Amino acid sequence: MADEQLDKLFFNPQGVAVIGASADPSKLSYGVIHNLIAHGYRGPIYPINPKGGEIQGLTVYPTISDAPDPVELAVIMIRAEAVPEALVACGERGLKAVIVVTGGFRETGPEGAALEASLKDIAAQYGMRLIGPNCVGVMDAHLPLDTTFITMMPEPGHIAFVSHSGAICGGSIDWARSVGVGYSRIASLGNQLDVDIADGIRMMKDDPNTRVISVYAEGLPDGRRFVDAAASVYRAKPIVMLKAGLTTAGIQAVASHTGALAGNNDAYVAACHRAGVVMVHSLQEQNDVAMALATQPLPRGNRVALLTNAGGPAALAADALDRQGLVMAPIGAATQERLKAVTPPGTQLGNPIDMLGGPRAEMFSAAGKILLEDPDVDMLMTMFVPQAITPVNEVVREMVKTGRDADKPVVACLVGGESLTEAIYTLNRGGVPYYRDPNRAGRALGGLWEYRQLRERPDLTPTPVEDVDRAAAQALLDAAQAHGGGAARGARFLDAETAAQVARAYGIAIPFSGLAADIDEAIALAEKAGYPVVLKRIAADVVHKADVGGLALDLRDADAVRAAFDRVTGGGRTRAMVQQMIPKGQEVILGAKRDAQFGPQLMFGMGGLYVEILRDVAFRLAPIGAEDARGMIAETAAGRIMQGVRGEQPGDIAAVVETLRRVGQLVTDFPCIAEMDINPLIVGSAGAGAWAVDVRLRIES
Amino acid sequence: MADEQLDKLFFNPQGVAVIGASADPSKLSYGVIHNLIAHGYRGPIYPINPKGGEIQGLTVYPTISDAPDPVELAVIMIRAEAVPEALVACGERGLKAVIVVTGGFRETGPEGAALEASLKDIAAQYGMRLIGPNCVGVMDAHLPLDTTFITMMPEPGHIAFVSHSGAICGGSIDWARSVGVGYSRIASLGNQLDVDIADGIRMMKDDPNTRVISVYAEGLPDGRRFVDAAASVYRAKPIVMLKAGLTTAGIQAVASHTGALAGNNDAYVAACHRAGVVMVHSLQEQNDVAMALATQPLPRGNRVALLTNAGGPAALAADALDRQGLVMAPIGAATQERLKAVTPPGTQLGNPIDMLGGPRAEMFSAAGKILLEDPDVDMLMTMFVPQAITPVNEVVREMVKTGRDADKPVVACLVGGESLTEAIYTLNRGGVPYYRDPNRAGRALGGLWEYRQLRERPDLTPTPVEDVDRAAAQALLDAAQAHGGGAARGARFLDAETAAQVARAYGIAIPFSGLAADIDEAIALAEKAGYPVVLKRIAADVVHKADVGGLALDLRDADAVRAAFDRVTGGGRTRAMVQQMIPKGQEVILGAKRDAQFGPQLMFGMGGLYVEILRDVAFRLAPIGAEDARGMIAETAAGRIMQGVRGEQPGDIAAVVETLRRVGQLVTDFPCIAEMDINPLIVGSAGAGAWAVDVRLRIES
Repeated sequence: MADEQLDKLFFNPQGVAVIGASADPSKLSYGVIHNLIAHGYRGPIYPINPKGGEIQGLTVYPTISDAPDPVELAVIMIRAEAVPEALVACGERGLKAVIVVTGGFRETGPEGAALEASLKDIAAQYGMRLIGPNCVGVMDAHLPLDTTFITMMPEPGHIAFVSHSGAICGGSIDWARSVGVGYSRIASLGNQLDVDIADGIRMMKDDPNTRVISVYAEGLPDGRRFVDAAASVYRAKPIVMLKAGLTTAGIQAVASHTGALAGNNDAYVAACHRAGVVMVHSLQEQNDVAMALATQPLPRGNRVALLTNAGGPAALAADALDRQGLVMAPIGAATQERLKAVTPPGTQLGNPIDMLGGPRAEMFSAAGKILLEDPDVDMLMTMFVPQAITPVNEVVREMVKTGRDADKPVVACLVGGESLTEAIYTLNRGGVPYYRDPNRAGRALGGLWEYRQLRERPDLTPTPVEDVDRAAAQALLDAAQAHGGGAARGARFLDAETAAQVARAYGIAIPFSGLAADIDEAIALAEKAGYPVVLKRIAADVVHKADVGGLALDLRDADAVRAAFDRVTGGGRTRAMVQQMIPKGQEVILGAKRDAQFGPQLMFGMGGLYVEILRDVAFRLAPIGAEDARGMIAETAAGRIMQGVRGEQPGDIAAVVETLRRVGQLVTDFPCIAEMDINPLIVGSAGAGAWAVDVRLRIES
Repeated sequence: MADEQLDKLFFNPQGVAVIGASADPSKLSYGVIHNLIAHGYRGPIYPINPKGGEIQGLTVYPTISDAPDPVELAVIMIRAEAVPEALVACGERGLKAVIVVTGGFRETGPEGAALEASLKDIAAQYGMRLIGPNCVGVMDAHLPLDTTFITMMPEPGHIAFVSHSGAICGGSIDWARSVGVGYSRIASLGNQLDVDIADGIRMMKDDPNTRVISVYAEGLPDGRRFVDAAASVYRAKPIVMLKAGLTTAGIQAVASHTGALAGNNDAYVAACHRAGVVMVHSLQEQNDVAMALATQPLPRGNRVALLTNAGGPAALAADALDRQGLVMAPIGAATQERLKAVTPPGTQLGNPIDMLGGPRAEMFSAAGKILLEDPDVDMLMTMFVPQAITPVNEVVREMVKTGRDADKPVVACLVGGESLTEAIYTLNRGGVPYYRDPNRAGRALGGLWEYRQLRERPDLTPTPVEDVDRAAAQALLDAAQAHGGGAARGARFLDAETAAQVARAYGIAIPFSGLAADIDEAIALAEKAGYPVVLKRIAADVVHKADVGGLALDLRDADAVRAAFDRVTGGGRTRAMVQQMIPKGQEVILGAKRDAQFGPQLMFGMGGLYVEILRDVAFRLAPIGAEDARGMIAETAAGRIMQGVRGEQPGDIAAVVETLRRVGQLVTDFPCIAEMDINPLIVGSAGAGAWAVDVRLRIES
């Protein structure tokens, strides 16, 4: 179903039926009818209840089939066991969109999950789209439409909110009304049986009233669908994403709340990077950033002017800006001269521009205008601490004037509380977002700059790596899986030689090597590889070779190979791998694994013995493009070292990029690969290549 | 002057004079008289103005000498140039405490600074203590006393606020009144000419109404005074510290605001560690943490129970708790059974305890009580998202009941806004701190646990290192300073041999070494040291030896020394150091430098070429005790590696601790040492010692 259609079905239906409507004002379904009427829905409303009669002045129809045309959306609010039958009735009535508010499905255990699965089958059978179950429904503050039982409706605004949780929708509306912030649309998706977060994001893309999409997610049932949806939307509209369940405790909480798999934080960060979303970590931060994105133009650069009547909060703001990667705009002599004419004597004309204790209200707009006209200023934070002399409500009116006339972002920070009630409404309704704390105002400007950079970044869509021998890799993996049948079934590691061959088939540089059963074979292979060589014990159960002594390095002649063979193989009890010894280079680790929510992902970082202790690693979704791989490398200390430090030669970053691309393609092409590690990848100086000295590959059969 | 006296002088004066009192209601000094009267000060109030007459019903005295007894505190609010004369008059009148509200001193430039210095001289001459100049004054909400012109007075409460900035005092009171939070005392210190942040902290220690001390600082003029004051107070009362000017932008903003030196972030973090303060990074975080410390008992452990009616916010809270180092309390079968009896059917009885959509209000106190009785629960976060069924104001009354009866911390998180106005007052005034966002509630509980750990940590006061040859070090440094006279005056590096001798005098393990002018001397020294040896070029201007090739390692016999000598010395143009070669070990870096605010500090971290890239470093104030040094080492990856990884032998941590103590003592004893680096310190396996292979020492003459 095309996105526009989904959008129209749920947010602009011609006729809404409420199945399970009650005449009892203490019931939630009474609230839904009430909200549809009181919040101004202009289409027909049909309460459905076998008892018939009238509810809030509307005719009650015994079944949905009795409801006259037009009816395009049904809201189901009956006990869980009766929902399948009601859903069939909706299908028979020709509906294409249903919201199941009722809870008591998968979140209650296996029986509920089975009942929920039956809903999906029925919806599919009739070609219906379904929001829920276990949700609150949808709102459009502009149409208006309110299918929920939440007692309040938000003011019309420009933030769309897509939420897993219904409670958070209610809390957010309550908050927004208290500060004069508006929403365009709200969608509570509950268990996401059919319409999921990905659909939710797409549904907001073409809404003319939506300027920013806020998403609250717990589990993401299909992580790649989310990534694809967000990636296709974020350049049109910013997506501000909050996800619960990123720590051990949070993951458990999410599991007990929704039965959803919350997943791994590294994979989530990698997914957000590819998806192009602005990540936030609290409801407050989400609202703070969304308010700025909903109301402000995007900044052309990261230079901020701070206009204030108090130095202390301005110093805190300067710290906050620095932490956001923003800088204090340099205020040149010409602008300082102009400021001097409109500010009180003694004003600090540098940045922060501190008008000290007693500026008049109109000085905020006069000085603000001058600052915004300075080409070295990209954004303005205007700050005020209420004091006895200047009436705060006049100050904020001047701030609103400044923001209204500006083509650059303007935000306001006023430190206070009791005296600000009216001022906060004036600012937010006047299009200048209000923040109580300098840090929060700084984060909001940081969010604007972050989104600006996201929107202008190069396309991250990876080009497939074509020059690979997919058939050869397939044959090796098929053989390994066949070989692993019977008792060994399940996840297991390939032997080192096979793993290396699979990697080589994908064009990953592997040192020459071969398997030797005895000393003579070992010497023959060593001669073919060229000295020096390395000897390694080959046994599928030994994962960390260095731990068990099954390794001999830098063997420079046949005698050395002979001397090492017995030790490495435990007196010939295993075979040995003879491998070309790679010249010295930087040791890095490069790996891939499969995340339950987001699929295959790549890992890159510092290698060597201390990889777990330094935790110098970056993650990305696989497959990966060259640009993205370069960014990934640059995120790590390993990558910064590779650029050359203290006069050392730079390493072959291009070869690492190429290896990342090829590993990414390999794990994408073969879902049976559960995990892959190249540790170490030895990176020579620029142009000398990067060698996968040890490849570890775990498959699931 | 004893602290109690200072406390009494400013917060319980018998009689207050306002010098520069005006009858014009638009003047700030009018506001001060008004506040003294209206906010309930019970002692005599004397407006001072040469014009005489009456102000707000009070007799105006022409000068302070005309004011009758008792008068113990003067508030000076006249133009800056006239302040010295007024201060002399106060001294003559026998006052011991003066608040100078007037601005226009050091913050305006050199002339103002000179004027300010004259105030200090006058105060010293008369034995007066002085708050300000450029400040707002003090308040005691319990006495009550209000010497400020801020239009509002806070409710009486238990948070003392010591602030550099007056504007932030005003903003904080405005905020506190809007949420029902109270203060015990407020002190705005302005330029801290005399009474500084350290005095401010000490003044709150014995106030029976103060349970937590919030500090807002910009510069700290005497960092060690602050550390000593906080360290002597924090076990009695928690100190929650916010400092502006920790980033480049913030430091500049502070400098332009107050002329104060804001200093270095690493040194500040080290100072806070020693001082025992809870560090926060925004006004909001400061208030959030202080509210919990002001009202809650300290937790016995870090296990939190989450009681909620909504799973989404609870999952966010679980993430927040994890990030704070707190854990979700395990809820055993017995407690679950008890909970079942008092919660709605379907309640998730694990943790979070999720009572789903419609719990009755009294269920919050019933379930809360059961949870608090569980010995596996150390703290309770009680959460509620307003919905149609349960009246929020009833819910919060039950929450207050839960908190009132508890000997464990209880905090409340309600997600919402408009519907919470009354609920927020009920909670905060009822002693259960209210947070709008789960992250903020999590931070508050984290702050309680953080302070509990601080209060119980071992004493960090370092024991002096006695077995050092101070005289030898003194002689070496004196000679170096004498030698460096004339043109070379200023900061400069000692030659490597002298630096090593200074370190050796303080018992730091230095490999045997000597200086050789020619090949024969080099060989003789090598034979004395024992092969293998290292040769180093000696020239005071070469700081990074590896960069210039003046180094030869692992010379195993006389021939090798002979071969290397010419290369290292550039054909004999410099002398060479011959040094015992230390066996392999872990390379770490250990350093010291002097911070302008906080004095000497120690640095420890991973050594080698990549020290700047890995930034694996910890900082502490010098001198340092053994316990603190162990903690410092454990903070770094270098320290974790030293504990032994992947079957490698643990390193000699005790030897590193000893080296840190000795370096700390050395830089403390000799303020002429501006900087000292041991890079590398080679750490052998446990018991084998730690060797300072290369000592770099910069002195200021």
